[in-house]
Amino acid sequence: MNLKPTLGRVLIKRCEPETKSGGIIIPETAQEKSAKGQVLAIGGFEKDKEFDIKAGDIAYFAKWGGTEIKDESGEAYIVIKADEILGVERKES
Amino acid sequence: MNLKPTLGRVLIKRCEPETKSGGIIIPETAQEKSAKGQVLAIGGFEKDKEFDIKAGDIAYFAKWGGTEIKDESGEAYIVIKADEILGVERKES
Amino acid sequence: MNLKPTLGRVLIKRCEPETKSGGIIIPETAQEKSAKGQVLAIGGFEKDKEFDIKAGDIAYFAKWGGTEIKDESGEAYIVIKADEILGVERKES
Amino acid sequence: MNLKPTLGRVLIKRCEPETKSGGIIIPETAQEKSAKGQVLAIGGFEKDKEFDIKAGDIAYFAKWGGTEIKDESGEAYIVIKADEILGVERKES
Amino acid sequence: MNLKPTLGRVLIKRCEPETKSGGIIIPETAQEKSAKGQVLAIGGFEKDKEFDIKAGDIAYFAKWGGTEIKDESGEAYIVIKADEILGVERKES
Amino acid sequence: MNLKPTLGRVLIKRCEPETKSGGIIIPETAQEKSAKGQVLAIGGFEKDKEFDIKAGDIAYFAKWGGTEIKDESGEAYIVIKADEILGVERKES
Amino acid sequence: MNLKPTLGRVLIKRCEPETKSGGIIIPETAQEKSAKGQVLAIGGFEKDKEFDIKAGDIAYFAKWGGTEIKDESGEAYIVIKADEILGVERKES
Repeated sequence: MNLKPTLGRVLIKRCEPETKSGGIIIPETAQEKSAKGQVLAIGGFEKDKEFDIKAGDIAYFAKWGGTEIKDESGEAYIVIKADEILGVERKES
Repeated sequence: MNLKPTLGRVLIKRCEPETKSGGIIIPETAQEKSAKGQVLAIGGFEKDKEFDIKAGDIAYFAKWGGTEIKDESGEAYIVIKADEILGVERKES
Repeated sequence: MNLKPTLGRVLIKRCEPETKSGGIIIPETAQEKSAKGQVLAIGGFEKDKEFDIKAGDIAYFAKWGGTEIKDESGEAYIVIKADEILGVERKES
Repeated sequence: MNLKPTLGRVLIKRCEPETKSGGIIIPETAQEKSAKGQVLAIGGFEKDKEFDIKAGDIAYFAKWGGTEIKDESGEAYIVIKADEILGVERKES
Repeated sequence: MNLKPTLGRVLIKRCEPETKSGGIIIPETAQEKSAKGQVLAIGGFEKDKEFDIKAGDIAYFAKWGGTEIKDESGEAYIVIKADEILGVERKES
Repeated sequence: MNLKPTLGRVLIKRCEPETKSGGIIIPETAQEKSAKGQVLAIGGFEKDKEFDIKAGDIAYFAKWGGTEIKDESGEAYIVIKADEILGVERKES
Repeated sequence: MNLKPTLGRVLIKRCEPETKSGGIIIPETAQEKSAKGQVLAIGGFEKDKEFDIKAGDIAYFAKWGGTEIKDESGEAYIVIKADEILGVERKES
């Protein structure tokens, strides 16, 4: 995918498939859940909002955060604001 | 269309036709979906909100973001705030 | 109409009559629609919110944006904040 | 009425009697309507919010804006924030 | 009552008894109503929010504004933010 | 209890037991009620939000304000933001 | 768990298991409850939001605050903004 996120946004490829549901969801608890994915591109950071997030990191974010974008082959990505990312895991090189 | 967007707004021609629905929409998931369109005009950027968006870019935005404007022939456009654009694809020249 | 809008507001004469409806409106899509009208008077612009809007412009705004004002003959106008105007069309002189 | 509005507020005598209704109001359209009244007193303007509003002006405001105050004879007035006033009409002297 | 309001708050003794109601209130109009009371103590004013309110003034405020405090004899007072006071009446000395 | 409140928060021991209710509460009036308790510890005040609140004061706050914390013996305390405290009573020493 | 929280966020291991419930929760009172956990990692503090929170502290937070993250073994953690932490207990060394 060739998309360049706008300033303060991050492009992510989800690690797990999204579950589908028709109707109203009754969660087991009121606790917000997370999802994770690999950071593909970063649109730069806004002033005073510089985060330690790099392409290749595994990023965690609220399960329904961000907006889904599909490429021509139907593959789904997430664009999310950098300040909605909860944390990252990074492989030591 | 001759419209000049106001400061911080962008005029877009949608790539896909809008789907119609009468009634309440039950989405498959709680994940926000996106739409895309070609940037036709930009009303300039607000101070400290300068985005890398140019006329001719394909812009992605939340599916129901922005406001629809119709020209005299009934053709529909979107005016949306620049900071609601998720990212852009640009053809190399 | 003799009304002078307050700072940051614009007085507009709608181009199309407002449609009437009794009850709840189920829009065809979730996309916000627009309306247009001619700018009659501007109450000046707030600091850092100077827009390129002039008396005589055709202004576009969200369909239900602004507040309706009726003059003594019952004719209806809209007063709307300048930063709610989506864009303008201007006749070259 | 002897009330001195606080900073940034305006005391107004409505021009038209308020209509009464018991229950839920279904407006003809989704467009916000306005009311008007004569400005009796101004509590001064906040910094960077100086409006061109004077005692004696006919002020327009959203129909249900402001808060009603009754004097001892039961006569009703409105106190409203200056930045909620849409515009004024002023008699040339 | 010995209470010292915190910065930016005012202690008031209501002039009229509060009406009691069990259930849902259907107001005659959508217009917000006011109540009044005597200012007993002021916790000082926040920076850039200095109001002309003094102990002894009759202050007007939105009918359900502020929070009720009862002293040991069961008598009820209101603590309200100074910037929620609509206006005051003051006896000339 | 050994808890140190974070910056801008206050630890309080309620004076009255909390009433229990199962279901929906229909208050007698729409007026917000208060509760009171003794200030045990203060986490310092934020810049430009310095309040005259001291350990030992009896503090008043909105009845359901703050968050309940239980120690190991099951005794309940409240942690509340300093700027939600309505006022204090202090014993002269 | 290897996660590095983003700026202004804290990684916590809950002390008590989360209770599960299917459906709507009717709390005994309207008072917000708290939970506690051990601070594992801190993503640094934002400017003007420096809190006295350290790894190893027992932190208290609103019962449903933060977002749950699960590691590969299914163990659950919480990531929460530092300014949502109510207070901490720290063992003297």
